[in-house]
Amino acid sequence: MTTQMIILNGGSSAGKSGIVRCLQSVLPEPWLAFGVDSFVDALPARMTAADEGIEIGADGEVNVGPEFRRLEEAWIEGIAVMARAGARIVIDEVFLGGAESQRRWLKHLDGLDVLWVGVRCDATVAAGREIARGDRAPGMAALQAGQVHEGVVYDLEVDTTRTESLECARRIAAHVR
Amino acid sequence: MTTQMIILNGGSSAGKSGIVRCLQSVLPEPWLAFGVDSFVDALPARMTAADEGIEIGADGEVNVGPEFRRLEEAWIEGIAVMARAGARIVIDEVFLGGAESQRRWLKHLDGLDVLWVGVRCDATVAAGREIARGDRAPGMAALQAGQVHEGVVYDLEVDTTRTESLECARRIAAHVR
Amino acid sequence: MTTQMIILNGGSSAGKSGIVRCLQSVLPEPWLAFGVDSFVDALPARMTAADEGIEIGADGEVNVGPEFRRLEEAWIEGIAVMARAGARIVIDEVFLGGAESQRRWLKHLDGLDVLWVGVRCDATVAAGREIARGDRAPGMAALQAGQVHEGVVYDLEVDTTRTESLECARRIAAHVR
Amino acid sequence: MTTQMIILNGGSSAGKSGIVRCLQSVLPEPWLAFGVDSFVDALPARMTAADEGIEIGADGEVNVGPEFRRLEEAWIEGIAVMARAGARIVIDEVFLGGAESQRRWLKHLDGLDVLWVGVRCDATVAAGREIARGDRAPGMAALQAGQVHEGVVYDLEVDTTRTESLECARRIAAHVR
Repeated sequence: MTTQMIILNGGSSAGKSGIVRCLQSVLPEPWLAFGVDSFVDALPARMTAADEGIEIGADGEVNVGPEFRRLEEAWIEGIAVMARAGARIVIDEVFLGGAESQRRWLKHLDGLDVLWVGVRCDATVAAGREIARGDRAPGMAALQAGQVHEGVVYDLEVDTTRTESLECARRIAAHVR
Repeated sequence: MTTQMIILNGGSSAGKSGIVRCLQSVLPEPWLAFGVDSFVDALPARMTAADEGIEIGADGEVNVGPEFRRLEEAWIEGIAVMARAGARIVIDEVFLGGAESQRRWLKHLDGLDVLWVGVRCDATVAAGREIARGDRAPGMAALQAGQVHEGVVYDLEVDTTRTESLECARRIAAHVR
Repeated sequence: MTTQMIILNGGSSAGKSGIVRCLQSVLPEPWLAFGVDSFVDALPARMTAADEGIEIGADGEVNVGPEFRRLEEAWIEGIAVMARAGARIVIDEVFLGGAESQRRWLKHLDGLDVLWVGVRCDATVAAGREIARGDRAPGMAALQAGQVHEGVVYDLEVDTTRTESLECARRIAAHVR
Repeated sequence: MTTQMIILNGGSSAGKSGIVRCLQSVLPEPWLAFGVDSFVDALPARMTAADEGIEIGADGEVNVGPEFRRLEEAWIEGIAVMARAGARIVIDEVFLGGAESQRRWLKHLDGLDVLWVGVRCDATVAAGREIARGDRAPGMAALQAGQVHEGVVYDLEVDTTRTESLECARRIAAHVR
């Protein structure tokens, strides 16, 4: 079988976006990249500050409401169809709910060959990179570093603490059929 | 029936993105916004400068290759499924091929209630706004102003030449069932 | 004498940045563009949420502290020196304090030939454009529309309510010696 | 004496911007950050593609013209005045001309207490990070990695190849008087 989808899961500032761009560079075929960031960009501005949308607390904690979940489910279903229609897809996700978040994806992936990748990063290092980026709510990286992996099952894991994005991408690419 | 999708088509710098954000603000339900820009962002970087991808000439002319078209078709199919799954979707498109581009969408929209909107802008005014934005290839706005509407059939048209984005959005919203 | 500096003052979403880019395009010599946005970008991230820095309220009200003012004064002094050293400079400002803000600039502009430009925009139209941009605190445009012009003296004023950025830029350029 | 200015020099994708943001976070006083990127942003759009401006070749080579140099000199003079006026300044630079570029700064820094910092990064690692960023001309990182340090004299050097931005910032901060 041929890998049709790569799903990366990791906390904020773990380095997922960099790995995605490197994957798009090292993989010979074109892969489309989507993820929680592009989904949130698609939401109405008011939902990033409302009860039904997504809310980011002063400590970096992220909470999402039921309307967010409903739209996200339709989005996941559509992404899965893009993959079935022949577009190779790489997803950059933050499983705030751990195993429960993975199940939300699995519901829609029947028959697809998916490569599940955990992107780990030491919480202290991720918190430092959050400062270096300067565009994320402080505290988010440390809060999410462990939480997002709870109960999630992977085909492989990479750790960006001491490994460059490009090297992580090469290890992942080696598992793409 | 209930409008499930709004597709805006217009040339570069005609003001589509502003109208989309205003629509997301004035419409009471949450609408997800996607479009040619978010699709191009999803492509590998190398495809924005390659024969199979998208190429922007020195005069602002945009050319896309067969691999771009193949991925775009899968993307359209997935977007249509998101709408069928209950997510209201507004699309911001540039129909470089006019009627032919509209047909590419129509192939996948069976059974969906779609509102087609033409976003017009006088070529000279759009060219001026292109300078004011400063982030687009000079010449693109003027080249596309007429071209993208050739043979395209709309439910309504708005003209941003002398009408603000918010007012255009209100006129469109009045047609949403 | 030759105009060495152009200072545009206007409320948020009045269209100053677009006019600046058009000015840089229509003026035959190269002009460097700076302004309150580039100054705020230069501040430490923590100052955009602190008592001594800049704070943007839920209603779009902007407050700045004493440390912000101290750094801003040094910045203004440096900008004036750039102009004296022969770089033509265009400034994009928001005079939250009206006449008092203009005095802060005037203190450092001795001997420089400055063109003062008021950029007006109807508060309702500016508020609509704020929604269309989608990247500003809602309410800021309406709050600032009149406030920033109180007691400020101009060489000329432009109004973007019904005039395009490029046309405003041409009118300003006609006053550049 | 008290350090009034920190000048970081390093090639593209060596990690200077991240170190600057970390410095602004770890240093107790507010430091203003400027650099070659903010200077280029201030230029007219047409100068980023013209003989007198800055030109980036297909291989990532950067060339700048005489008008760029003239404006840059005025800009440097103004930045030095900001530091003399009491604003602490951190500069993020790419010395394309090595020692010659450093001299351009030194001409204007008389009497200022400046901390010179070299930011090194292994060329291969920087090239990988360039891919991960996805927003720079491919090849620039490798070309500049050694070139920008030729003949430049530093107070200290940091190497981001295996050291995080935050740790580099802490080492630099320890040298700030």
